[in-house]
Amino acid sequence: MTDLPHPPPDLPALQRRLAEFAAARDWQPYHTPKNLVAALSVEASELVEIFQWLTPEQSARVMADPDTAHRVRDEVADVLAYLLQFCEVLGVDPLAALAAKIERNELRFPVRREPGA
Amino acid sequence: MTDLPHPPPDLPALQRRLAEFAAARDWQPYHTPKNLVAALSVEASELVEIFQWLTPEQSARVMADPDTAHRVRDEVADVLAYLLQFCEVLGVDPLAALAAKIERNELRFPVRREPGA
Amino acid sequence: MTDLPHPPPDLPALQRRLAEFAAARDWQPYHTPKNLVAALSVEASELVEIFQWLTPEQSARVMADPDTAHRVRDEVADVLAYLLQFCEVLGVDPLAALAAKIERNELRFPVRREPGA
Amino acid sequence: MTDLPHPPPDLPALQRRLAEFAAARDWQPYHTPKNLVAALSVEASELVEIFQWLTPEQSARVMADPDTAHRVRDEVADVLAYLLQFCEVLGVDPLAALAAKIERNELRFPVRREPGA
Repeated sequence: MTDLPHPPPDLPALQRRLAEFAAARDWQPYHTPKNLVAALSVEASELVEIFQWLTPEQSARVMADPDTAHRVRDEVADVLAYLLQFCEVLGVDPLAALAAKIERNELRFPVRREPGA
Repeated sequence: MTDLPHPPPDLPALQRRLAEFAAARDWQPYHTPKNLVAALSVEASELVEIFQWLTPEQSARVMADPDTAHRVRDEVADVLAYLLQFCEVLGVDPLAALAAKIERNELRFPVRREPGA
Repeated sequence: MTDLPHPPPDLPALQRRLAEFAAARDWQPYHTPKNLVAALSVEASELVEIFQWLTPEQSARVMADPDTAHRVRDEVADVLAYLLQFCEVLGVDPLAALAAKIERNELRFPVRREPGA
Repeated sequence: MTDLPHPPPDLPALQRRLAEFAAARDWQPYHTPKNLVAALSVEASELVEIFQWLTPEQSARVMADPDTAHRVRDEVADVLAYLLQFCEVLGVDPLAALAAKIERNELRFPVRREPGA
């Protein structure tokens, strides 16, 4: 497209691109929170499908096969896309929500330290 | 922790915090890709559960109730946390995956323009 | 196949046929409870996918389209098949489990009767 | 309820009891196919949740623990209940759908026989 490399995308920029993408195609009437969260769960299950018959050891090696690696990246993108669109229509900041949750979990699951460590 | 406000978190920083969080608690043996993707789908379903009996109109108003709004943000955080941990163990860059997917979708779903527009 | 009509199948007979089907193909090593329940959730999501962008009213009319009706029946069969195989490997009786649950729910959600009714 | 033991329940009888249960509580307006299939997928995920951090070997022994065994039976009942209610509102016969699917799968996955066997 251009001689200059793209800057690495950040989450808010991708969220805006997704919103513009949907608006340009008049998809907003379909993008109720209820529908978007259903689509999110369907995409998460498509990711599960890749792993459903694998042993734990096989599951750790999926990226060694180029076709499976592509499929994994594609489904990760779909999950993230619907999560961001869901957050967009409800005004949720996903990064702030995760930062707050990590802080709650640090209190909820304190690190056990060995005596003397 | 400090007198200075936290800068807004970015996705790679949160991904590192989650990796450190799991390592400090010796949770890595549980964090196979297969297990993490199951956990991701379970959290996506907990988000679906909030909406399952709502009409489309009710689903658009969930953030007006503080308890439901908290629950929505909490489940969004859980979905994003497992997605990032899944990406971490498989070496997938979720932002690059989504940027590539948006570019593919722009070709796959071209915007129909009205004649003369 | 035959001049005589098949008797209507019952659940235990279908459960046995599924067990024989898997045994004849040496699929039992894949049929851990963990894998079967993942497959069950994936099939449930394939059923969700049919409905994800539909309005409640459209969702009530899916059987009017022969292709969609076939897809619905096919996914119902997949969900039931994995549920029965899961029950088989764990020794769960699904009909007894459901009968017990209905009895618990009759206590948990008593019918409100109008005064004088 | 009675001095006589209940006959073992069959699927059509349980389906009728579920329909009566919902009608007595005026729940039918909530029971659109779209909502019921979302609820089905949520219950399937609650079953996944029991297994998500277990090894394949641990997953095969869940019924040895009475509390987990109860939870498994309870979630199996929920999955089956929503599947039957979904079938009820759309007029799908789940046993006929499964019998037809098994017949299609017998053609799709023929048993490989060893030479001379």
